[in-house]
Amino acid sequence: MGLNQVEKILPGARWLRGYTAQFFISDLIAGITVGLTVLPQGLAYSTLAGLDPQYGLYSAFIGGVVYALLGGCREVTIGPTALLALMTSRHTGLGGVSGPHLAVLLCFLSGLVELLMAFLRLGALVDLISLPVTVGFTSATALIIGASQLKGLLGIQGSSGDSGFLSTISYVISKFHELSPTDALLGVGSITILLILRKLKDIKTPENASNERKFFGGLLWLISTARNAILVLFSSLVAYHAHQNGQMPFILTGKVRPGLPEMHLPPFETSFPLSNGTVVEMGFIDMVSELGSSIALVPIIAVLGNVAISKAFGGTGVDATQELIALSLSNIIGSFFSSIPVTGSFSRSAVNHASGVRTPIGGIYTGALVLFSLGFLTPYFPYMPRAALSAVIISAVIFMIEYEVVKPLWRCSRRELLTVALTLILSLCVSVEIGLISGVFLDVAFLVQRTARPVLTFDHCETESRVEYMMVKPRHSLLCFPAVEHVRNGINRAIQVREKFTNLIVFDCRNVQELDYTAAKGIGSLKKELENRSIHLILLGPSDDVKLVLKGSLKGNNVQHVDNDNELDNIFQELTSHRNELKEIVAPLLEQKNDDDITIMNATSIRK
Amino acid sequence: MGLNQVEKILPGARWLRGYTAQFFISDLIAGITVGLTVLPQGLAYSTLAGLDPQYGLYSAFIGGVVYALLGGCREVTIGPTALLALMTSRHTGLGGVSGPHLAVLLCFLSGLVELLMAFLRLGALVDLISLPVTVGFTSATALIIGASQLKGLLGIQGSSGDSGFLSTISYVISKFHELSPTDALLGVGSITILLILRKLKDIKTPENASNERKFFGGLLWLISTARNAILVLFSSLVAYHAHQNGQMPFILTGKVRPGLPEMHLPPFETSFPLSNGTVVEMGFIDMVSELGSSIALVPIIAVLGNVAISKAFGGTGVDATQELIALSLSNIIGSFFSSIPVTGSFSRSAVNHASGVRTPIGGIYTGALVLFSLGFLTPYFPYMPRAALSAVIISAVIFMIEYEVVKPLWRCSRRELLTVALTLILSLCVSVEIGLISGVFLDVAFLVQRTARPVLTFDHCETESRVEYMMVKPRHSLLCFPAVEHVRNGINRAIQVREKFTNLIVFDCRNVQELDYTAAKGIGSLKKELENRSIHLILLGPSDDVKLVLKGSLKGNNVQHVDNDNELDNIFQELTSHRNELKEIVAPLLEQKNDDDITIMNATSIRK
Repeated sequence: MGLNQVEKILPGARWLRGYTAQFFISDLIAGITVGLTVLPQGLAYSTLAGLDPQYGLYSAFIGGVVYALLGGCREVTIGPTALLALMTSRHTGLGGVSGPHLAVLLCFLSGLVELLMAFLRLGALVDLISLPVTVGFTSATALIIGASQLKGLLGIQGSSGDSGFLSTISYVISKFHELSPTDALLGVGSITILLILRKLKDIKTPENASNERKFFGGLLWLISTARNAILVLFSSLVAYHAHQNGQMPFILTGKVRPGLPEMHLPPFETSFPLSNGTVVEMGFIDMVSELGSSIALVPIIAVLGNVAISKAFGGTGVDATQELIALSLSNIIGSFFSSIPVTGSFSRSAVNHASGVRTPIGGIYTGALVLFSLGFLTPYFPYMPRAALSAVIISAVIFMIEYEVVKPLWRCSRRELLTVALTLILSLCVSVEIGLISGVFLDVAFLVQRTARPVLTFDHCETESRVEYMMVKPRHSLLCFPAVEHVRNGINRAIQVREKFTNLIVFDCRNVQELDYTAAKGIGSLKKELENRSIHLILLGPSDDVKLVLKGSLKGNNVQHVDNDNELDNIFQELTSHRNELKEIVAPLLEQKNDDDITIMNATSIRK
Repeated sequence: MGLNQVEKILPGARWLRGYTAQFFISDLIAGITVGLTVLPQGLAYSTLAGLDPQYGLYSAFIGGVVYALLGGCREVTIGPTALLALMTSRHTGLGGVSGPHLAVLLCFLSGLVELLMAFLRLGALVDLISLPVTVGFTSATALIIGASQLKGLLGIQGSSGDSGFLSTISYVISKFHELSPTDALLGVGSITILLILRKLKDIKTPENASNERKFFGGLLWLISTARNAILVLFSSLVAYHAHQNGQMPFILTGKVRPGLPEMHLPPFETSFPLSNGTVVEMGFIDMVSELGSSIALVPIIAVLGNVAISKAFGGTGVDATQELIALSLSNIIGSFFSSIPVTGSFSRSAVNHASGVRTPIGGIYTGALVLFSLGFLTPYFPYMPRAALSAVIISAVIFMIEYEVVKPLWRCSRRELLTVALTLILSLCVSVEIGLISGVFLDVAFLVQRTARPVLTFDHCETESRVEYMMVKPRHSLLCFPAVEHVRNGINRAIQVREKFTNLIVFDCRNVQELDYTAAKGIGSLKKELENRSIHLILLGPSDDVKLVLKGSLKGNNVQHVDNDNELDNIFQELTSHRNELKEIVAPLLEQKNDDDITIMNATSIRK
């Protein structure tokens, strides 16, 4: 079996073509740098998800390996993210310790749903999420995550009993006097240090600098990139040292299960004690119904994140379906190793890119580093101060708050600010799911409103042979069911207020690309309605598609159409030469209209 | 206070202007003819709604009076309809006799919701209901109503315990051997007679016929129009006669409360015995939550029906808001007289029209006839055979099944057949509400899909000065968030497969009427992406609105645009004269692209 055939099954195999020592070294450096980021983030995000710290690391190694085998974009790194951890946290708090089982099952089911999305080509669903919704959603998530870390940051004990944004904030405010000074100092200090270290990498070394200067520049960059790991390591050392001297200045992370995760099926049943001591048994169906909408929303959010990253770094060469399969298998296989839901991390992918990664194989080195930590470093994890982990999370998420879009939106599209606001407020006050869905719903409603209310222009025109007519032109290219009434009313109003009398109306279809049955029927009955008032309706330049729909829908009652101005002129001349005759025929019809069945016929065809 | 001022408050007062004796006679004849239709229909529809027959009549007199005072279209008659009776029936079956209270409260609340719709201009919501959805929905309703009457028609006793279409049909089939021959004979015979009588009115009397012939023609028309009343009267007489002789050949309607309805507040609490004898007490909140989605759906269906009729008969002169207020007050005031939800009836409005009604005052005469029947005829109502009432309903609803739209839809727009099918099947198998909502949802999804996947055309063009470029033209006028990815992918694919090399791309915006923030950002990042491959993107003829959004969204990164072909030529000449210089600058940039931050910058702006 040649490499070509292998590549059909494992697209990642192509990375092995010409995998030189230089590539290996680049990937190794990038992999380790990403590892130094994912270690503290993984530990922090798993506490954010309401789980013991090791679960963040369990989630951080499979993604890299799977993506190396299946992925198409070298920069992407898959692992735990703040957003998915937050969404997972809703299912880990039941009765205190319901924890890992529901989270791991969610990971497995998310993978399955992503696989389904890949096969049904449902990845396009993320197209429905506009930038304003994304902005509102991620900003709200950042605020919620930030708020959830305030307690840890300030060393406040206890729980508000509700993970909502408002109740978390008010709990922190009410307990502010109970904060632990040492933890608060460590927390606030850590954030300050992290933000300063983050700035370091913006210091540019000039091209023509000395070698020493360049080395120093490189060192600064490395410190800046590994700042989370350095901070956690350093604060843990302090805590360890204090502990050896019998002191406990900080609230620590607590016990961590040592060693590698065991491989077993994802949990399809679980039991956990409630706070009052009774043990709850949950079967598969109970667990699925507890997970509820998360089973659909976690995959959509995961895909949204992943698509954004692979698009951002991969440009045009990325196969969306292939990416979806890689993401799906990262979750499915991960769930066998007690992973929580994972997706591409924007911040770590940027680190990966900046570290000069050459192929996704870098992810394997990241995974190896994570496994090494699990194997050998777990005894030291319990000494990590919680305030330091909170600082890691907060200084990561504050850059997700996108206040800077408000100004351009205010300048150019205020309507969309409403979408941002609705998504943000509902995400904060109700839940991120409701916020996201409401934002999409509002956007879609505006889209429908746009097609329902096409702008019509009315012009008084004259043909070359000086026949006057009213030209009605819809500015939109879709003419569908919600617009029928609007167009009909618009034309009727225009007839009432027209400057000069003319009983010829030309409806310009040259821009109309699509017409549905309801619209075709609407045009048919408009024609009849106008005919009853002896006004002539003619369509100008309908496309073949439009003609087909009109012909099929209206049968005998088809509306006259012409393809260009010349034909229009000809038809008008015919009509006006017959006008007097017409008048004689039409006038008595109009007289007896009340006793006539024409109106009823007309009626039933409008909306029977 | 002059007539003009009165008209501002009561638009119906204008009908009194020049209300001649001739108008009076016309309205009286039409009013009584409609009365002869609404009497049997009202009795039948109230049993369809699961209530005693008198409630149908309680619902049949207020609408006419209110509409005479407030309505704007002389043909409209407001009263009980089969569709609303069916929707009401869901709330009358609780424990057997929960009946009238919930139905009357539903009438009151529907009126309030309609008033709200009038003030918020939400009447436009019915624009969302396309013809295919209407067809599927009314056909399904007709089938459900028809099925629900089979038991009565065949004299089958008992109940399937479930009012769904499938369970009703299977109950009738399983009990078919228990049918009562006399009832079945009466039922099937009645339908046959009604259908034949219905045909009578199509017999046209020639214009030049003798007076006798004309009289005979008029008589036939009257018999045809009053066929329901004649049938019910005749079969009741037979039943009454048999009863006097101690025989009971038919299942009868049962006791009817005699006399006019009392006027009192709509019920805000109720109690009723369950089948096991326990009495259920319901407060206002309980009742509202029991009515649930009906509180929104009944008004929407009512408005849909009413709009269709007033549009059909009133043409262009009808004020939709005014109609909505009339409908709303018919329900609100009606609920004080124990009415169930009412709306315009298409069949009775057609009778009204055909009877030569001149003003809505005809509705007052209909109301008077209904009150007269309640006052003096109620002692005879119990003798109405149920099979005859079922026949009245069935022969009314079979014409609501609109199989004839299938052929044109198949010919010209098969996609919309899916909407018909979905609405029909879900209405039959789940519920009419779910069917309706799913149909609207599917239509909206297709509408969004259309804006999400604009057709792009790609042409290889040449300017007058023989500079070659690729012209990209979207066929649609809306360029919004769901389309961004599609356009970007389309252009990238087109670049890959282009016949001749050119690094100039012109995006034709002349048809684009609207652009949102997401699309503007998308164009901005497309431009950067293309620039990285040294391809130039230029917009042709964007409108001022589009320019504004682009400028606001992209700030420094604005995309070059030109207004016509001449400007295009000028720009191209500049570009091509600099091309060699450009190549020298761009080539090395492309070499180092991997280590460059350009891609990240690009990335974050796509979907950060």
